[in-house]
Amino acid sequence: MQRPVAEIFSQGDEVVTGEIADTNAAWLGRELTDLGFDVARHTTVGDCLEALVAAFREVAGRADLCLCTGGLGPTCDDLTAEAVGRAFGLPLELDENALAQVEAYFTRLGRAMPEVNKKQALLPGGSERLDNLWGTAPGFALQAGRCRFVFMPGVPGEMKAMFLRWVKPDLRRRFRLFPARLVILNTVGMGESALQERLDRVVLPLEVKLGFRAEGPENRVKLLSPANFPEAELHEVVKHAADTIGDAVFSIGSSDKPASDLASVVGRELAARRSTLYAVETLSGGKLANRCAGEPWFLGAAVIPDSAGFCRYFGIQPSDDFAQGAIEIVPRLREEECADYVLVQVARCDRDMLLDEAGTVEVRFVLAAPDGIWQQTRLIGGDIERKQSTAAALSLDLLRRYFLKKPGLQPL
Amino acid sequence: MQRPVAEIFSQGDEVVTGEIADTNAAWLGRELTDLGFDVARHTTVGDCLEALVAAFREVAGRADLCLCTGGLGPTCDDLTAEAVGRAFGLPLELDENALAQVEAYFTRLGRAMPEVNKKQALLPGGSERLDNLWGTAPGFALQAGRCRFVFMPGVPGEMKAMFLRWVKPDLRRRFRLFPARLVILNTVGMGESALQERLDRVVLPLEVKLGFRAEGPENRVKLLSPANFPEAELHEVVKHAADTIGDAVFSIGSSDKPASDLASVVGRELAARRSTLYAVETLSGGKLANRCAGEPWFLGAAVIPDSAGFCRYFGIQPSDDFAQGAIEIVPRLREEECADYVLVQVARCDRDMLLDEAGTVEVRFVLAAPDGIWQQTRLIGGDIERKQSTAAALSLDLLRRYFLKKPGLQPL
Repeated sequence: MQRPVAEIFSQGDEVVTGEIADTNAAWLGRELTDLGFDVARHTTVGDCLEALVAAFREVAGRADLCLCTGGLGPTCDDLTAEAVGRAFGLPLELDENALAQVEAYFTRLGRAMPEVNKKQALLPGGSERLDNLWGTAPGFALQAGRCRFVFMPGVPGEMKAMFLRWVKPDLRRRFRLFPARLVILNTVGMGESALQERLDRVVLPLEVKLGFRAEGPENRVKLLSPANFPEAELHEVVKHAADTIGDAVFSIGSSDKPASDLASVVGRELAARRSTLYAVETLSGGKLANRCAGEPWFLGAAVIPDSAGFCRYFGIQPSDDFAQGAIEIVPRLREEECADYVLVQVARCDRDMLLDEAGTVEVRFVLAAPDGIWQQTRLIGGDIERKQSTAAALSLDLLRRYFLKKPGLQPL
Repeated sequence: MQRPVAEIFSQGDEVVTGEIADTNAAWLGRELTDLGFDVARHTTVGDCLEALVAAFREVAGRADLCLCTGGLGPTCDDLTAEAVGRAFGLPLELDENALAQVEAYFTRLGRAMPEVNKKQALLPGGSERLDNLWGTAPGFALQAGRCRFVFMPGVPGEMKAMFLRWVKPDLRRRFRLFPARLVILNTVGMGESALQERLDRVVLPLEVKLGFRAEGPENRVKLLSPANFPEAELHEVVKHAADTIGDAVFSIGSSDKPASDLASVVGRELAARRSTLYAVETLSGGKLANRCAGEPWFLGAAVIPDSAGFCRYFGIQPSDDFAQGAIEIVPRLREEECADYVLVQVARCDRDMLLDEAGTVEVRFVLAAPDGIWQQTRLIGGDIERKQSTAAALSLDLLRRYFLKKPGLQPL
């Protein structure tokens, strides 16, 4: 069973010169692989018309699908439409709808559309417009040679939104795909090697391929199986793997049904109880609030990066036992903030500790709940970004474990 | 003055399928650009012999230099040497020195060399060996067509060490290089197209290339000039460009001296005054605190995503004029939080508005300073991530403008 051949094409001097790493290509590579394409090549070319024209022509003779990102902006170095026009002899035409959309974007911002943005409404003749509801640059798609070309903006947020909303469903209709089945086990608080060791005990059927995707505190375990692999047997394998890993698994998803992230898992529990959460962040420095912002159950957070501020906030003497002091105040916070649950990160940490990539910080995660106070203490290391996101994830994990009938938590 | 054309080539299924992002390519892209090469292309091909052979032949006719990573390992999917041999008719030969090195590596580990590793000592006939002092896989280099090929391991640590120790000095000897000068103007609060329009008025010398890089609220303007471009004239060009853009420019950097980010620009001003900052975040949902966390001048923030919470925090009736209510309280916050400066995002925003990618939110940025209250009102659109990071950046920008003798701010 031959899989259609796909390529990924990125445009931009900032990518070829290494100013930015091409995360779009990796993301699209995963999406296409999961869909069932054989991803044969990534190509990145700078903002050079001749090179773009040549590259598009090569791809047209080589692949069944080419997903392209970048070069759709309003500025002089955005050459994609022009290059496509030249490569395939399709003169650019003004797309009235595209123009209207670009204008509407600026109207929403209460500004007049700058003249230069008109350029973004010029599309190669005969191409299909892809509406951009997330920015100014409309995308477009066309057939050239054996290859279906899809052009999307380079801004990751706009590209991903456009791919998921318009492109992915269209690819499913357009190509005969036999995607390998991908099952993803989301875990939190367990390192990649710890997961690997656990799973070494699991005997997998030959057809099932085991993979890992490390994403800091949240690591994914991937089980890849052929489309025709028996449903029931796969179900067994997944259950066995999940049981072996244990309660570090917080959600399970598949190619078609994405697994919930940690905040939504916790959010469901809070919503089911019509309960609210307030947080006091120290180590995570705003990342916890940012993961919850916009959720109806999230009341807000106090972000207090340094210990001095923490003491002031809780009216503790810096000399005191920090955690003890905090634990005495936490219940009061539940009333003051009218919150059902209050989460506090208790950590003695200054700027140097935060920036010391070799060192670790001890964090006591304290949860004030209607039925008392619960806690969990963890050592957190890595660079500042890693420390912050780990602290944010483990805060949510404390709540999750609380709702999971509290495995691993100590009451007070 | 023509710069030599370079390409970067990566091999590996894990890269094309997006298992891992190709950080090697970005790193090498920066190194080559700084050396003075014109990096024209990145190509990534999976572990497929025919595809590799074809790709190497293409490059040989197109570039003066190609740096390749990956595919030098001992396993069956490591095909680089074989592919190079086929592409350029160079049968593989056992390199005794290479073999000795691989064996020595295992001896150091106190292990016997596995039979499979012998493969790593097979190099295309006539190629120059590059000793790997950091792992098992020796690299190699050869000339094919107009192109100098250099093959290095895919393990980032080994690749970087090998490049810096053997390859970089050799490239300096081998090519006549005139590194280009890159000047970057960091701007905030101005769209890419607005910048383009301003700069259209600037007449640039032919040798100076203008580029843009959109990063949401912070957009970069890039001026690329040849090494031999007169210093004084470049200085004039940069000054002219910066003056034309106006006070949206918050820092200027170059290839050798990176430009400061917005938080450090503001931080310098605060540090110089031995002053501290406290923030009340609504729309940015924790992103502002996260940009300041760990800075000595940052006391902390209250993150209050929704309007109801905002009213509770400020003791305002939801019916009241929001901004007015807040503005009356802000000065008091300076005392309560013992902060010299208090920054508040006043916005009437609920979850639906936050998630509505088509809609915009009006935010009044209010700064309580020792010399009174200053403010600036902006409309913010985009998806939730975009809204949040824009609100965070514009908050810092309000402080920056305040320290810049307040262009564009209204006092109260």
